[in-house]
Amino acid sequence: MSDPGETVSAKDTEDVIMEATFRALSEHGYTDFRMRDIGEEMDLTRQVIHYHFDGKHDLMSSFLEYVIDQYEGSVEVEEDADPRTELDARIDQCLFGPEFEEFGHWDRMKVYHELYTYAQNDDDHRALFDDHYDRIRGSVVEVVERGIEEGEFRAVDAELMGQLLTDVIHAARGRRIALGHEDAPEQARRAIDEFVLDSLSADD
Amino acid sequence: MSDPGETVSAKDTEDVIMEATFRALSEHGYTDFRMRDIGEEMDLTRQVIHYHFDGKHDLMSSFLEYVIDQYEGSVEVEEDADPRTELDARIDQCLFGPEFEEFGHWDRMKVYHELYTYAQNDDDHRALFDDHYDRIRGSVVEVVERGIEEGEFRAVDAELMGQLLTDVIHAARGRRIALGHEDAPEQARRAIDEFVLDSLSADD
Repeated sequence: MSDPGETVSAKDTEDVIMEATFRALSEHGYTDFRMRDIGEEMDLTRQVIHYHFDGKHDLMSSFLEYVIDQYEGSVEVEEDADPRTELDARIDQCLFGPEFEEFGHWDRMKVYHELYTYAQNDDDHRALFDDHYDRIRGSVVEVVERGIEEGEFRAVDAELMGQLLTDVIHAARGRRIALGHEDAPEQARRAIDEFVLDSLSADD
Repeated sequence: MSDPGETVSAKDTEDVIMEATFRALSEHGYTDFRMRDIGEEMDLTRQVIHYHFDGKHDLMSSFLEYVIDQYEGSVEVEEDADPRTELDARIDQCLFGPEFEEFGHWDRMKVYHELYTYAQNDDDHRALFDDHYDRIRGSVVEVVERGIEEGEFRAVDAELMGQLLTDVIHAARGRRIALGHEDAPEQARRAIDEFVLDSLSADD
């Protein structure tokens, strides 16, 4: 077996494998994807992949964590933003995503949504998605609660609103990917404003 | 080849194949599903399946139409129901589904959502889902427009509201299936009432 630490660190190697996995998944789709497809997408040997990952399921679990980390790590909200500004920024981030050099938000979300549907048959993946769902919803609940405390928002059920917004975001992304409705995220953004957030102000 | 019209009509035979397909999909999942799996789920021979369907893709397209027909055909709304009652009935139907003798709403929706995710790679399936999405959203838009005309609802953007409600319903069902959140449909129903429908009344 070749030494996978020879030229780059284990972390770097895994990142190279993760990005190659993106390329291979984009090309083949999850169903037809085989571990050997990754080898064709990078300069590292197949042995290196098997050194780092114990089969397709292990690779996919790590890949899912990698996608979620990128998605979550990129939310930029100013420290002293008022609740509505923070809420808007979080919703926009989830709907329209951060920018990447290679493979944009939608290529990444396509993989995310495909694995999401499979999660019903995979306890490990389901747990990862469940945690992610909780954190996304939790971040919305937190800012809604802050808005209520600061007297900016009326006293709504913050948990229920977090759930509703997270569901709408997920559905709009899924609709853009599955049905090709390019404007689904923009429509969802308008609907959230018009029917949910505009009535959230404590002034009404 | 055996004569598929020998004992039952072509329509009946196809229904038998469709229900056997349900059982086979429930057991194997879409990815691992093969046409020969259906033969194990019914008394008809494999030749009959190939007589009626030209391969897995043709079978799946017919199956998807079958699932959608069942889903749509079963909405029961009284002719003279007021707009809010009709809207409630339509939302409940989509969220909680009709009753079936064998394979309940959730078994059927599980297949629906799995094929929905695949639709990005399949123009025929995408067109079927797109039509179905249009009809579901259209039925919501229609009742919202009627409510506005009759002075029961305030003058909202009915198209946008139809989209929002259809998205929330889809996401809640998907979350129940993928993440096992059994109460997702009930939560969505509460959130729709509290944040969307209660402010729809023209009296406010």
